[in-house]
Amino acid sequence: MSAIRLPQRGWLFDLDGTIYRGRDLIPGADATIAALRAGGRRVVFLSNKPLETRADYARKLTALGIPAGDDDVINSSLVLARHLATLDPGAPVFVIGEPPMVAELRAHGFEVRTDHHVRWVVIAFDRTFDYAKLNVALQAVRRSGARLIATNPDRTCPTEDGEIPDCAGMIAAVEAVTGRTVETIVGKPSPIILEVALAALGVGAADAVMVGDRIETDIVMGKRLGLATVLVLSGITAVGDPRIAEIGPDLVLRSVRELLTS
Amino acid sequence: MSAIRLPQRGWLFDLDGTIYRGRDLIPGADATIAALRAGGRRVVFLSNKPLETRADYARKLTALGIPAGDDDVINSSLVLARHLATLDPGAPVFVIGEPPMVAELRAHGFEVRTDHHVRWVVIAFDRTFDYAKLNVALQAVRRSGARLIATNPDRTCPTEDGEIPDCAGMIAAVEAVTGRTVETIVGKPSPIILEVALAALGVGAADAVMVGDRIETDIVMGKRLGLATVLVLSGITAVGDPRIAEIGPDLVLRSVRELLTS
Repeated sequence: MSAIRLPQRGWLFDLDGTIYRGRDLIPGADATIAALRAGGRRVVFLSNKPLETRADYARKLTALGIPAGDDDVINSSLVLARHLATLDPGAPVFVIGEPPMVAELRAHGFEVRTDHHVRWVVIAFDRTFDYAKLNVALQAVRRSGARLIATNPDRTCPTEDGEIPDCAGMIAAVEAVTGRTVETIVGKPSPIILEVALAALGVGAADAVMVGDRIETDIVMGKRLGLATVLVLSGITAVGDPRIAEIGPDLVLRSVRELLTS
Repeated sequence: MSAIRLPQRGWLFDLDGTIYRGRDLIPGADATIAALRAGGRRVVFLSNKPLETRADYARKLTALGIPAGDDDVINSSLVLARHLATLDPGAPVFVIGEPPMVAELRAHGFEVRTDHHVRWVVIAFDRTFDYAKLNVALQAVRRSGARLIATNPDRTCPTEDGEIPDCAGMIAAVEAVTGRTVETIVGKPSPIILEVALAALGVGAADAVMVGDRIETDIVMGKRLGLATVLVLSGITAVGDPRIAEIGPDLVLRSVRELLTS
């Protein structure tokens, strides 16, 4: 009979590199999540990617043997829409982003426009980014005094075929031409995505664990808010990384499988 | 009978804001250039914009009453091609830029490719910039170790309809996703464009004058290389700008018309 290594009630899991790698489940991730749930723990999955809907992630997890519904997934497009709804509900916005980002904003009551008559420019990872969008963003800032908010700060996104440009490219282009800095980036390592996740779980930071494979986002962010942190070496971080000792996660495991004692 | 206020043989003129404003000649610019030429001075026109060919600029100047040939115009696409030809002649390059930039590189013997198998990524002001180009630039740096060179550092470009995003947007996007800094930006205020212009005129810096409407590019760059400098207030700089006293151009004139004494 296996036991869970940590006592907290709320569990936040990064996805790529932690639960799966690309299309493949990390061995034992399904059993670990099942054991946590069976033990009465609450689980939520975090992603910085605004490219898929929460339903897409839920379907992928379910297909990999981890039954999940939309509400079990917190991604940066959801967090951006929820956060902006607290700042400026129903505002007219221009979106540098893909259809799931636009859909999330519409679902939260925002007026998504294609011209520069807006109060916000929302900048997301966007594989359809182009000069015309950059120009609307510039005009929105110059002519309408629009403010800037973004989903995630990642330079690149890993794919099956290698890394591709991520949201940092869109953010940098808009900042360079407008001369204005993005006010808020809601995704990891921002505390905003953690706060949304903790609210969804209904637990406080002291009763929660952040599990992920990236020191500079998952672990740094978790520690900053006072969560317990677990670094897994199944993703981007190598065993001998000197930052492990420096940042000091509570546990360092080969993979989530080791969250259970055997 | 009018005389020329300064004795130098070589004269470098900025274009927009100095010789013309959009489609309109600045009154007296034609007479000033004619008088300089009649007095045996050599004249060249400088532009940071890589969007038009030198022939386009020469035609525009000629139509405005200032007869000019291709060789009278030095723009950032020419300077980039000439400079890169000294660093890595005939190299395979990927271009973020418009057709005149590509044509200038081909005319200088470079192999312009559309994939990432290149030694350089050339970044220019590009109104057809998009995610696909950003991705090729990333792959060129990551997979081929490509180096980065750019035409001009301007945030925005003034047009009849207001300002539009300029090369700084493309540079920032590439730098953000690659994590690498552009090595060289050849356009103003880089000394490289001035050196190309002085070589074209066949005069040394001590025997040359830089005339322009922008303190932070035209005047700063001219002073840095030891040219005489003339600030004209017919463009972007306002009469009371505190930087005028700080930077100290040799002459401050309402327009190029006042280069001649009446």
